[in-house]
Amino acid sequence: MIHIGALRRLDAADPLRAFRDRFELPAGFIYLDGNSLGPSPKAAAGVVQRVVTSEWGEGLIRSWNDAGWIDAPRRIGGKIAPLIGAKPSEVVVADSTSVNLFKLLAAAVTSSGRRLILTEPDDFPTDGYVAEGVARLIPGARAVSVPRQHLAEALSDEVAVLLLSHVHYKTAQRHDMAALTAAAHAAGALAMWDLSHSVGAVRVDLNGCGADLAVGCGYKFLNGGPGAPAFVFVAESRQEALANPLSGWMGHAQPFAFEPRYRPADGVGRWLTGTPPILGLAALEAGVELALEPDIEAIEAKSAALFDLFADLVGARLAGAGFALISPQAAAERGSHIAFRHQHGFAIMQALIARGVIGDFRDPDVLRFGLTPLYLSFEDVWRAVDTLAEVMADESWRETPPRRPGQVT
Amino acid sequence: MIHIGALRRLDAADPLRAFRDRFELPAGFIYLDGNSLGPSPKAAAGVVQRVVTSEWGEGLIRSWNDAGWIDAPRRIGGKIAPLIGAKPSEVVVADSTSVNLFKLLAAAVTSSGRRLILTEPDDFPTDGYVAEGVARLIPGARAVSVPRQHLAEALSDEVAVLLLSHVHYKTAQRHDMAALTAAAHAAGALAMWDLSHSVGAVRVDLNGCGADLAVGCGYKFLNGGPGAPAFVFVAESRQEALANPLSGWMGHAQPFAFEPRYRPADGVGRWLTGTPPILGLAALEAGVELALEPDIEAIEAKSAALFDLFADLVGARLAGAGFALISPQAAAERGSHIAFRHQHGFAIMQALIARGVIGDFRDPDVLRFGLTPLYLSFEDVWRAVDTLAEVMADESWRETPPRRPGQVT
Repeated sequence: MIHIGALRRLDAADPLRAFRDRFELPAGFIYLDGNSLGPSPKAAAGVVQRVVTSEWGEGLIRSWNDAGWIDAPRRIGGKIAPLIGAKPSEVVVADSTSVNLFKLLAAAVTSSGRRLILTEPDDFPTDGYVAEGVARLIPGARAVSVPRQHLAEALSDEVAVLLLSHVHYKTAQRHDMAALTAAAHAAGALAMWDLSHSVGAVRVDLNGCGADLAVGCGYKFLNGGPGAPAFVFVAESRQEALANPLSGWMGHAQPFAFEPRYRPADGVGRWLTGTPPILGLAALEAGVELALEPDIEAIEAKSAALFDLFADLVGARLAGAGFALISPQAAAERGSHIAFRHQHGFAIMQALIARGVIGDFRDPDVLRFGLTPLYLSFEDVWRAVDTLAEVMADESWRETPPRRPGQVT
Repeated sequence: MIHIGALRRLDAADPLRAFRDRFELPAGFIYLDGNSLGPSPKAAAGVVQRVVTSEWGEGLIRSWNDAGWIDAPRRIGGKIAPLIGAKPSEVVVADSTSVNLFKLLAAAVTSSGRRLILTEPDDFPTDGYVAEGVARLIPGARAVSVPRQHLAEALSDEVAVLLLSHVHYKTAQRHDMAALTAAAHAAGALAMWDLSHSVGAVRVDLNGCGADLAVGCGYKFLNGGPGAPAFVFVAESRQEALANPLSGWMGHAQPFAFEPRYRPADGVGRWLTGTPPILGLAALEAGVELALEPDIEAIEAKSAALFDLFADLVGARLAGAGFALISPQAAAERGSHIAFRHQHGFAIMQALIARGVIGDFRDPDVLRFGLTPLYLSFEDVWRAVDTLAEVMADESWRETPPRRPGQVT
């Protein structure tokens, strides 16, 4: 039996408890969707306002130099680097995760005679869609999906790149990055990781694992704001050999020399394409700076404890209610959310949101709850499951209106 | 002889004079660089602040539905449509101009057996760089540059797409969109226009000219903020046949169905790729809404008058000082900036900026001055040229420090 008093004592002793005050969190809600859109760091509003009123409003064009706008993609990339086990010179912020996936996959597939992109089925859709796009564009290229237990044997000498999400968007399953990177290398393939559900949430050590390429999202556990720019990692050893197919002016060695021919920048800067999105970068920088403060050990420990509490409470209070845990039991094998299947998942999630517990739903039947150690308490988890138990007991989910076409879930 | 009193009378009678108050314009400066980065509409700060504090801060993930975030790319695209002679269903806001150039060029080149991208030399570099990138990626594809007077004869049956900037970024020369589009069509090629230096500045009638494809920039004459998202136009008649090579989840027919295979959205929505950049979109929407208010006739008339005044004043006060006008004399043949060559152009522009007259410099020797009718007065132009005359008379430009590596000019 789990008592709320004991949970409050856990919260009082939580080494991360001070971080909650650093985020905007509306009263009356428990926010369990930081794995989809992180909340606003309190610092973000001021930073963005300064960019709009002072840097843009007063500084105008001069701010490209004077306010450091032109350096922002490399500067913020450098700040993300320690969160993913990379050198500052290996990371740059640019475009969206989807666009960056395209750049790196197309580069990988054209960098050798190999033409196969190997990935797994049921991964986050955009990864597969973009791989399809690369395959349609480059003759001979193919994208092949193989269930994770068969990936190692599928690493043939035709595979140019193994593309995997480090943490799965639905189940939170975490791949063994070191082992799979080694397997890719043993087969002569590049290893590319989508860190969207792991950066800021779990320990990531790209260089320790020898990873070649990575992309990641700014608006989830980095709390960089809706549609925040994404990032690109290219290991130092691969930087010279790979060419950005989206060869825009900001990736040029000298963008303001206005040379007639493209000449890629040295290092990671060549992965830039167009003019950097300054407002989005400013909010992202506030999120990244906050993410750099806590120790990853404390985040991992609390994430594991929040997960165990959530799972235990559901087991104790909702046994027989139709919830099937689909996230791994072992902390090292998962990311920082918990997911259940339930045949009425969409309706139940809507009813929960109506009562102030915000998670999300993923087709066809998955309820996801983000477990973000920086701003969630053990008591929050208790209250969330308590509300879930209410929703199931009074069957209020049966009143959920049907899903609208185009509705974001 | 031009008297400032007469100019003040022109300003007093200017039908656009009320718009100046709608922009943040720092005291003590004359801003002649709106063709590079438009100033902040006064409305932008409040709009962006609302997005950060209320929509993101309070609404959190729910704002994708409740605040209309998910519809923003189509909604704002629809607002841009009347500015470029398009239907709302033909325009969507996405990514950067460079990324959008890649999408449309790659789509054009793969949509037929033709493999040639025809463009002109000395156009804005990113257009050529991106065309090179498409050519490197797609076997048989080539990008060929031909001086503008020879474009018509270069339209062979190998040309897939004619890509041109409507208004030239250096000289302000404006192409005859109707004639060149017709020439492209007569040769069986698609006509694609980069509107970065024309949208919001001159009359654009894509559908009236029968244009197939276009891209454009949000942060110049649309005043959408630094690095604002760009837009894509695809004529209705081309929408079914062309495929977005950057096939990300937001261009899927049902992004939140999380289907395993890519299935493009109907219409212009398929040109979306990743998650929309909400902060940048919010600022852009403020700029676009303001751009919709004035009549294009009034803008064109004042732009022409500002240009003539600038040219006349330079002719009268700086004859023999080494300035060579490189913009067309005829208003219908140019955009909304004026450009001069001068062998000491960089140093002169830096000296001007130091005295509060902000234009910009383009290699190797071009001084550009944006003539933006919404917030510039005739008196501004008089003062700008007066300051230029001072800088030349006292030779203060000789004190300009040398250009730093990486300096944005």
